Amino acid sequence: MSDQDQLASENDAPDEEIYELNRREVAAILEVVQENNRERLVELMESLHAADIADLLEQISANERRHLIALYGVEFDGEILSELDESIREEVIGVLNPEVLADAVRELESDDVVDLLEDLEEPQQEAILDALDDADRVVVEQAMAYPEDSAGRLMQREVVMAPEHWNVGEAIDFLRKSDELPEQFYHVVLIDPKMRPTGYVTLGKIMGSPRTVQLSDITEPSFHTIPVDRDEEDVAYAFNQYHLISAPVVDKDDRLVGVITIDDAMAVLDEEHEEDILRLAGVGEGSLTDRVIETTRQRFPWLAVNLVTAVLASLVIALFEDVIAGFVALAVLMPIVASMGGNAGTQSLTVAVRAIATKDLTGSNVWRVIRREVLVGLINGLIFAVAMGIVGVIWFGSPLLGLVIGIAMVINMVIAGLAGTVIPVALEKLGVDPALASGAFVTTVTDVVGFFAFLGLAAVMLL
Amino acid sequence: MSDQDQLASENDAPDEEIYELNRREVAAILEVVQENNRERLVELMESLHAADIADLLEQISANERRHLIALYGVEFDGEILSELDESIREEVIGVLNPEVLADAVRELESDDVVDLLEDLEEPQQEAILDALDDADRVVVEQAMAYPEDSAGRLMQREVVMAPEHWNVGEAIDFLRKSDELPEQFYHVVLIDPKMRPTGYVTLGKIMGSPRTVQLSDITEPSFHTIPVDRDEEDVAYAFNQYHLISAPVVDKDDRLVGVITIDDAMAVLDEEHEEDILRLAGVGEGSLTDRVIETTRQRFPWLAVNLVTAVLASLVIALFEDVIAGFVALAVLMPIVASMGGNAGTQSLTVAVRAIATKDLTGSNVWRVIRREVLVGLINGLIFAVAMGIVGVIWFGSPLLGLVIGIAMVINMVIAGLAGTVIPVALEKLGVDPALASGAFVTTVTDVVGFFAFLGLAAVMLL
Repeated sequence: MSDQDQLASENDAPDEEIYELNRREVAAILEVVQENNRERLVELMESLHAADIADLLEQISANERRHLIALYGVEFDGEILSELDESIREEVIGVLNPEVLADAVRELESDDVVDLLEDLEEPQQEAILDALDDADRVVVEQAMAYPEDSAGRLMQREVVMAPEHWNVGEAIDFLRKSDELPEQFYHVVLIDPKMRPTGYVTLGKIMGSPRTVQLSDITEPSFHTIPVDRDEEDVAYAFNQYHLISAPVVDKDDRLVGVITIDDAMAVLDEEHEEDILRLAGVGEGSLTDRVIETTRQRFPWLAVNLVTAVLASLVIALFEDVIAGFVALAVLMPIVASMGGNAGTQSLTVAVRAIATKDLTGSNVWRVIRREVLVGLINGLIFAVAMGIVGVIWFGSPLLGLVIGIAMVINMVIAGLAGTVIPVALEKLGVDPALASGAFVTTVTDVVGFFAFLGLAAVMLL
Repeated sequence: MSDQDQLASENDAPDEEIYELNRREVAAILEVVQENNRERLVELMESLHAADIADLLEQISANERRHLIALYGVEFDGEILSELDESIREEVIGVLNPEVLADAVRELESDDVVDLLEDLEEPQQEAILDALDDADRVVVEQAMAYPEDSAGRLMQREVVMAPEHWNVGEAIDFLRKSDELPEQFYHVVLIDPKMRPTGYVTLGKIMGSPRTVQLSDITEPSFHTIPVDRDEEDVAYAFNQYHLISAPVVDKDDRLVGVITIDDAMAVLDEEHEEDILRLAGVGEGSLTDRVIETTRQRFPWLAVNLVTAVLASLVIALFEDVIAGFVALAVLMPIVASMGGNAGTQSLTVAVRAIATKDLTGSNVWRVIRREVLVGLINGLIFAVAMGIVGVIWFGSPLLGLVIGIAMVINMVIAGLAGTVIPVALEKLGVDPALASGAFVTTVTDVVGFFAFLGLAAVMLL
């Protein structure tokens, strides 16, 4: 499949995004599907990358998807399956003709098959494993034996390696004579006699060096091996931190068992980010192609947690019913204090969660960061206290009310800075993903503190 | 600099994260800095990658930073500067001895120098440009002429290319004879006589093919060129979507002007993630190393926007002061309705913002997504309406109050689903980053609707 992308200069709608399917393309394809025009469909799809076809399938309705896949028939490519969002992958596999599915799967590299299998239910896993040759199936099953989300699942097993004592000439002769080099490789891994990797050399360096130069003299300065059971999140971090292009994977005896390349690491980085951003918002695993019931189910637990914390905050308000009855302006103003605290807390929290993910917030600087967040809360709290104090005086004509809301604001924003940093750090220490649960805790704290400080001060100072 | 990383198996604290500086290392380094022990400092730092040294500098105090840099002296490496967070880069450049700075900068590749210059003030830019050789300075100044955050700033100019009619043998001979191949390259770009790229071939394929094979017969199936003025965000998207390892950059006449490699694209992807996640939380450009005043200043505008929207919501409450005075339970329960709406809205919003960023939410499926979000809001709204209705009845003994809070909950959660999707899509259409401003709009909507629906219904049904 060759898909050359003619870019901006030839695009008739320059404002349209060029790296995505445009709406007209999707409409044109759906039209030929409706017309049952197979020939024209294949023609239209030919210029699309598998990733774009997957996006197309994600963007249309389940019904349109079924028709399109039926019409497209044997043209359906294994790579499209790889690129599909897991939320509709099962559906698509269910719709595919078993023979088309078998052909599609056989086209894939073993690491892509593993990636495909991970998210499927048992019977669909079996169907795919059965489609593979015996040799491929063994490789895939071995990879599936490694823990989920580990380097072992991510790596490819075909590694181009050379003894560390070889020179450039020997490496070139070996490579030129090899029958089966992997589709994608960029480095030759040097190994010692016990199969332990000791460094790697880029193909570019090999190309550019005289034949007599020792491989061990032209290894890359930055070399990291990855234990096979390491979490893929750490793998992505290492690639990003050390600008790795590929890295050898080793077993517990430090022996070479595979290699991970940067494109896989980049995909993991992207997934990890998606997870963080969705978790921070209290959305479990959501995807745009999930159905209504699935989405409702995913969002429900977080809303339930929020209901409990909101009721908790209401209980605090209920303590002061008499105070509010005596001075209804308090009911009008109290959400402002809680809301400002909630916002300041979310700011601190997000910076902390992100810094924990990038390993920038550690034991070495946690106290400095906490101090900073509290000070920032204090200063912004003071500024907004003055602003709200003035609003309170003008609106309700009561300087005392202005003072109460001002003091409550400062207290809540300081607490927000503190809670927004301490809570994610503590969750991380406890082994809980700070992105997952921090939000609910932090807003509970700022709601409770906000209402309590404001209404409590009002009870003391106004009545 | 050679930094081999001995991993897990030899780590005495297996629970400790292995891809980051550990706390003991930092403490040990700070100790030798205090002792003014230069020799031992150089020794300790030798095993650290530049990225880790940058992290170290970010994690210690400004004072410790100054001492460490002074003691480290000429060992200070250009790469450390590249890796430093921009928030302390200026400070570090200011502290560095001018000669050390000049040496450090001269070690860097031209695209790294460009990256360094982008975030600096005029006088520091001059100082660095002056340190460069004339040839390097011209290259850097040319790159700086491209728009900020464009492919032109990101690319490196050294491209390994070959005429499209060459065969493998010619390519190998050419590469073996070249004096100056770039440090990192993985592909040979094929060009036509007008310097327009027509495809690319991996070094692996060249190594593995007979000398007589035409290069044009072994090009990669997926080939994308990148216009030089394209936004780096789109570049990162294209690399991630099409699994590119490198991509040629072309000018407006489609002529080859440079190449972007995946490691740069991965760094951009990571930055874009950071931007999205921070903007969603109303944190401008924040970084963990910013000082208190800088951080206060960054967070202030978003808190100010929130204050305005919170006052807006309070004005809605003020409309119903009499109703609340007559029935104080309303003041106790009203934050629950607003809070549930705010949470549901944030869930929808985050999914939408993320889907827009990954180009999964487009004109083709926006109506289907809106319908889904509204339905999800309706179903969860109904469930929580029943739950809160029961709470209302038990707590305050009033079935009517239970009904009021239930209806208000359904209304607000449906509106939340609608606003959470429509607002980011609309902002995107208007050319505003949806991550930046959506949050404030959505919570304003859910606060105003929540208070208005609850108190309005109460006024009609309870009094």
